[in-house]
Amino acid sequence: MNNAYQQLCQRFRRLSRFEHLSAIAGWDMQTMMPPGGSAARGEALAELSLLRHELLTDKQVGEWLKAAEQQSLTDTERANLNEMTRQWQQSSVLPASLVEAKAIAGSRCEHAWRKQRPANDWSGFSANLRDVVELTRQEADIRANANGTSRYDALLDLYEPGMTSVQLDTIFADLKQWLPSLLEQVVEKQSHHLPQPVTGTFPVAAQKKLGLEAMALLGFDFEHGRLDVSAHPFCGGVPQDVRITTRYHDTLFLSALMGVIHETGHARYEQNLPASLAGLPAGLARSTAVHESQSLMLEMQLARSAQFLQLIHPRVVEAFGVQPALEMDNFIRLAQQVKPGLIRVEADEVSYPAHVMLRYEIERALIEGDIEVDDIPSLWDEKMHNYLGLDTRGNYQHGCMQDIHWTDGAFGYFPTYTLGAMYAAQLFATFRQQHPAVIDEISRGELTPLFNWLKENIWQHGSLISVEQLLINATGEPLNSQFFRRHLEQRYLA
Amino acid sequence: MNNAYQQLCQRFRRLSRFEHLSAIAGWDMQTMMPPGGSAARGEALAELSLLRHELLTDKQVGEWLKAAEQQSLTDTERANLNEMTRQWQQSSVLPASLVEAKAIAGSRCEHAWRKQRPANDWSGFSANLRDVVELTRQEADIRANANGTSRYDALLDLYEPGMTSVQLDTIFADLKQWLPSLLEQVVEKQSHHLPQPVTGTFPVAAQKKLGLEAMALLGFDFEHGRLDVSAHPFCGGVPQDVRITTRYHDTLFLSALMGVIHETGHARYEQNLPASLAGLPAGLARSTAVHESQSLMLEMQLARSAQFLQLIHPRVVEAFGVQPALEMDNFIRLAQQVKPGLIRVEADEVSYPAHVMLRYEIERALIEGDIEVDDIPSLWDEKMHNYLGLDTRGNYQHGCMQDIHWTDGAFGYFPTYTLGAMYAAQLFATFRQQHPAVIDEISRGELTPLFNWLKENIWQHGSLISVEQLLINATGEPLNSQFFRRHLEQRYLA
Repeated sequence: MNNAYQQLCQRFRRLSRFEHLSAIAGWDMQTMMPPGGSAARGEALAELSLLRHELLTDKQVGEWLKAAEQQSLTDTERANLNEMTRQWQQSSVLPASLVEAKAIAGSRCEHAWRKQRPANDWSGFSANLRDVVELTRQEADIRANANGTSRYDALLDLYEPGMTSVQLDTIFADLKQWLPSLLEQVVEKQSHHLPQPVTGTFPVAAQKKLGLEAMALLGFDFEHGRLDVSAHPFCGGVPQDVRITTRYHDTLFLSALMGVIHETGHARYEQNLPASLAGLPAGLARSTAVHESQSLMLEMQLARSAQFLQLIHPRVVEAFGVQPALEMDNFIRLAQQVKPGLIRVEADEVSYPAHVMLRYEIERALIEGDIEVDDIPSLWDEKMHNYLGLDTRGNYQHGCMQDIHWTDGAFGYFPTYTLGAMYAAQLFATFRQQHPAVIDEISRGELTPLFNWLKENIWQHGSLISVEQLLINATGEPLNSQFFRRHLEQRYLA
Repeated sequence: MNNAYQQLCQRFRRLSRFEHLSAIAGWDMQTMMPPGGSAARGEALAELSLLRHELLTDKQVGEWLKAAEQQSLTDTERANLNEMTRQWQQSSVLPASLVEAKAIAGSRCEHAWRKQRPANDWSGFSANLRDVVELTRQEADIRANANGTSRYDALLDLYEPGMTSVQLDTIFADLKQWLPSLLEQVVEKQSHHLPQPVTGTFPVAAQKKLGLEAMALLGFDFEHGRLDVSAHPFCGGVPQDVRITTRYHDTLFLSALMGVIHETGHARYEQNLPASLAGLPAGLARSTAVHESQSLMLEMQLARSAQFLQLIHPRVVEAFGVQPALEMDNFIRLAQQVKPGLIRVEADEVSYPAHVMLRYEIERALIEGDIEVDDIPSLWDEKMHNYLGLDTRGNYQHGCMQDIHWTDGAFGYFPTYTLGAMYAAQLFATFRQQHPAVIDEISRGELTPLFNWLKENIWQHGSLISVEQLLINATGEPLNSQFFRRHLEQRYLA
């Protein structure tokens, strides 16, 4: 007879096998599936999702969790039990009717948004969004009561366990002090020597080959993963079989290349999670922001550095031939160009936090009930003007309708992008300090020290310790946004 | 409150959603998955398979079936209930321990076979095969008791419901009378004018383009399906999203082209099953042999006819350029070349039945306990000599170790290949008789009448009527192997 903890491990391993199927069928839907397969796939995935919910929220799981609390467990087992409890609590606390109503409202809102966004139809969109917000407020309310936190913090905790809006307020208040003027200085500095844009076409086959070379350089394990194409790039699959995607434009190549490198950062984290905890909650990636820190570590800290750009440069020239824009100096300026724009996903790392900050301020007020959906456009216009000096009035499609997150009810997600950028800066600074010769090593292609460091400090810990403890163990202190500021100043103003 | 029949429909629709995920994850495993994903995928699929087994053999399903028998049902509902009962009975009759033991033995045997076959290691292989045979005999025994049939017939019924070894014996006794001498005559006749083989290389991209053109010509619905590459070609996926595969050799193109056409035949059947019965057993394809008849209808009856070869010829020349072997007359002789060989999957349609017949005779005796695994090689040698005039002594890898079917315990499957060829000949002969102008229509590219006829007579019926009734309705008589004989005589000796 298995004890409660063993029963739990069995149940969660079973759940992870079903998650495997969900991840692969989800990947297929984005990369391979012909359009006519959509309805049947949706039904199959919904059926599986219902099953997983039943298996997780099963009354017996609650009893096992209670009984396991009394068992004598190792630290690893205790951490695993905590993560199991966390998953169970998050799933069990909501009534099934609310979960279903939110899924339906989110799906209706997203479906309509795909046409409303290109049509700039805010009034159509906002009608659907109101339902999503109303149901998300109900969700937040229930979660807040259960967690003893504010409504917004209860949602934030789903993505970044332990993070609070008090902490975020401090971080963003600081950011607001220096980021707008830093951005202005960078733009002014770069204006004296703007990079020449690339010309001609960049065949998809050559771009793909270059992307695969970059992945190899960055240690992607092709025995346990692959690269494909999708409309929206993502990292999916399972740790044993990680599926990353990109999209190609034939008149540009940097966005696909940097996209591949970004997803490779996510992939390496997944591929190096502790194998001994495979299928168990403690073996999963720690949080959304820690995940983003690993993608930004490779994309922003490493790959957009002059040293890495020197390393990849010969491969770029081999792929696309010689042209003035691809001369080394210009190539670096292209990869480091700062250009505030309306669209978050196209933003450089200097302007990106402004996009996140404005979304955070709006979504938090929305969930806490301080503003309503109708207030969004004017707040958006005001904040875009203040933070990035841009005019978005009347331009909903490139303004408050540009992202998919709110349509799906994923409030609380946006801050993790900037937290990830800050974690990455702090981790990379620590690594550089511990390995003073690292800069030369990078341009020589010696990246193993960095990967070993990440494996030792981040990847191998899965969810065994908290985000804060992970940062303290790796860098000697909790999150300190000054590392990010120094990174931007050194790269863009030095 | 739903009645028993409605409860059953709900349960089987739920099962079909899980089968959808199994089909897509299985397709991915053969076409996309990196090697390192194998163990986790195997576990995920096994977990899903266990779940499906539980949901199907659930005691409640047995009670609903009993209650539904008493309900007043339409003909369609009655047919559906019969198929549900059939699936339930087939799954419920075996003890779980036997199912598991057979799965393990089959998987061990297949795994070792992948190395034993190239090593020609009969003694290693036969040790594993003995376990598989022993467990399959146990399975056959239980099924035979439940069905009131012989052991072999109980297995045959899994693939071709209603077919018996008495019928097969008659068919094969007849075949044995005329096939060896017909084969001899064809080979002799062709020897006076052997086709010139193709030379050079056939780029995979051009082969793929040609395959897609052939699929389009044959009415494949690309909104609901796609073409990919796998080591062993198959037709998978679900009716709403059919996944067919092929493999390319760069010094040959006919095998990939004909392979694509063969799988397109399977695909069109799947894509045209009755949508109103989607997810229900009566909406599934009728049987393994009927499925094979649809692939052979397109490959053998249609695509290897001189008329279709004329239709596709300009596209072949456009794909690969001009060469003597691709002149029309030689191209037709290449596609219709008869050449007895050791390997079943490479066999032409005249020698193919001999491969099936010898396997049928051996596997039937094996399951009935008339022979043992050690008797296989000498029987194989003897029958290959008698039916095809070939020597296989000591050549296990191209002899009795060439197929995957026995390693997995799929005894009773082989006869469906030849039944399929015979159904196809009978169906096509009837269609030609009803549409005398058809031959001219084919070379002009007018294939719609054939597809409409297949849809009306086969595809749209799913599993609503028995195989025999399907044949009688479509052709006016039950299976008559003389259609197949006449087809071979007309194509190869006229």
